[in-house]
Amino acid sequence: MTDIARIRAAAARAAGRVRETPLLSAPGLDALAGRRLLVKAECLQVTGSFKARGGWSAVSALPAGTAGVLACSSGNHAQGVAWAAAAHGLPAVIVMPADAPAAKIGGTRALGAEVVLYDRAGEDRDALAAGLAAGRGLALIPPFDHPDVIAGQGTIGLELAPQAAAAGVRTAEVLVPCGGGGLASGLALALAAEAPGLRVRTVEPAGFDDAARSLAAGRRLSNPAAAGSVCDAILTPTPGALTFPILSRLAGPGLAVTDAEALAAMAVAFRHLRIVLEPGGAVALAAALWRREAVAGDCVIVIASGGNVDPGLYAQALATG
Amino acid sequence: MTDIARIRAAAARAAGRVRETPLLSAPGLDALAGRRLLVKAECLQVTGSFKARGGWSAVSALPAGTAGVLACSSGNHAQGVAWAAAAHGLPAVIVMPADAPAAKIGGTRALGAEVVLYDRAGEDRDALAAGLAAGRGLALIPPFDHPDVIAGQGTIGLELAPQAAAAGVRTAEVLVPCGGGGLASGLALALAAEAPGLRVRTVEPAGFDDAARSLAAGRRLSNPAAAGSVCDAILTPTPGALTFPILSRLAGPGLAVTDAEALAAMAVAFRHLRIVLEPGGAVALAAALWRREAVAGDCVIVIASGGNVDPGLYAQALATG
Repeated sequence: MTDIARIRAAAARAAGRVRETPLLSAPGLDALAGRRLLVKAECLQVTGSFKARGGWSAVSALPAGTAGVLACSSGNHAQGVAWAAAAHGLPAVIVMPADAPAAKIGGTRALGAEVVLYDRAGEDRDALAAGLAAGRGLALIPPFDHPDVIAGQGTIGLELAPQAAAAGVRTAEVLVPCGGGGLASGLALALAAEAPGLRVRTVEPAGFDDAARSLAAGRRLSNPAAAGSVCDAILTPTPGALTFPILSRLAGPGLAVTDAEALAAMAVAFRHLRIVLEPGGAVALAAALWRREAVAGDCVIVIASGGNVDPGLYAQALATG
Repeated sequence: MTDIARIRAAAARAAGRVRETPLLSAPGLDALAGRRLLVKAECLQVTGSFKARGGWSAVSALPAGTAGVLACSSGNHAQGVAWAAAAHGLPAVIVMPADAPAAKIGGTRALGAEVVLYDRAGEDRDALAAGLAAGRGLALIPPFDHPDVIAGQGTIGLELAPQAAAAGVRTAEVLVPCGGGGLASGLALALAAEAPGLRVRTVEPAGFDDAARSLAAGRRLSNPAAAGSVCDAILTPTPGALTFPILSRLAGPGLAVTDAEALAAMAVAFRHLRIVLEPGGAVALAAALWRREAVAGDCVIVIASGGNVDPGLYAQALATG
């Protein structure tokens, strides 16, 4: 089980490795949002997303003698685990869909991992991964449904609580991009302990809002489709068995934005904050900008969760934004 | 005269206003540079460049009763001064070339300044500015040749010294984009006092390397042309009367990179650091990547000085990088 003690232990193991990311703001951004807007720029994290937190937490908690690690990921978890494994001197095998962004496949390989590509439509990823793990004696690091992964993502809350307090903010909604819910649940646990006036709300792509619908229904629901949004990082079919009870207790209601809004938010972040966001990393910013009526308070906090995006798609976002 | 006491006083006046920017790194970047590479991401500064430091320093040092301020700038100094003036409740008039990047003209107006455009080829900017300042009783804030502007830019060194020490770096060359030399000279003064093992080297666009040639000659030389590089932020014709003696004592030798290298460095920063750089803000990173043989040591520090760039040019940089 993940609790605040486990999050604090993850933070202690990550000291000097995981980066404290800045909480950014800009006058022009406040004007666009109609209220004060603070952006936790987790795209500046090592490996370009918050996934380095969970990857480091899980790998650093493995028992001595572990032969290596294996992860399944479209890219950000892949890079987080690959980076953590390399720093621990462990081999890493990453199972990635063949249609993952080239920036993510290349980034994972550059971190020293062995990348095994599979066909989303025709192959059974989990069977492939289980076979590899068993054959080579590798420890599987799940993308979100693991107590140490959730604890690692929660370390962002131990940073955000004092940063928000230093900015004079004690009460605010914290909008969080949500796939399987590892980041949102870990952050919610940390904030409940350290800054109870800050409340997590999930943000997802429209049509892939399983977390929002599950929170409303009180039980885990699934998305009708597995693909079809540009927000590749957060197209998880359903909230996790471990993450959902935490979210159900501490987070919501969920929000959703369109792909066009996510792309436009990338352009806003380019212009006002000079940070690079990927579509899935920009959905919370998009909600702060274009779901104003659904957000309460005179200040809103946004997690900008990742920035691993191919140049062509980025140029498209700037052209339309 | 600018000395370390004046820089410390500027930092004290800027507390809580000017942002401490992170010192970033990435494994892939070290591999490209052939040595450890640390990047001071000053593009994340308020207004998107280090110019907020000098603007705040100069405006906050004005005598009580000042009616307003005036600055001449192609864009980054404009935004730094406009932001500082607005926060002090002072009107700001900014004289900008009509061909400045739209992002910079728009950004300056959004900060509440009155923008007066002039034609680089056909109008005398200094006469225009002097007339406006005299007519309205405005205090002129020069872009670099002013003791409080240099002191403000120097505050970056008070941040960098402990950041480098925390990273275990006591000896390194610090590559700095250089226009009139305000940033390079202020930083050099601060580092001489706080981290004497860190030595400043200027970086300029090829063909506009007045600082490098002046440092080599021991006297202030000028560029043959006034325009013709994409690095609009740093096309100053000659080093400043105040900045050059400081640079001559504490900095060099200077380096130069091509426009194509500056654009390619923007693409590297996009991919490996997820920060947005403008061409003039990327020249030091370009030198770290593609002037390796001219740089000494097993670690190099780069100032990424600004990120105010139009989307079209940015997309071009990503496509060619």
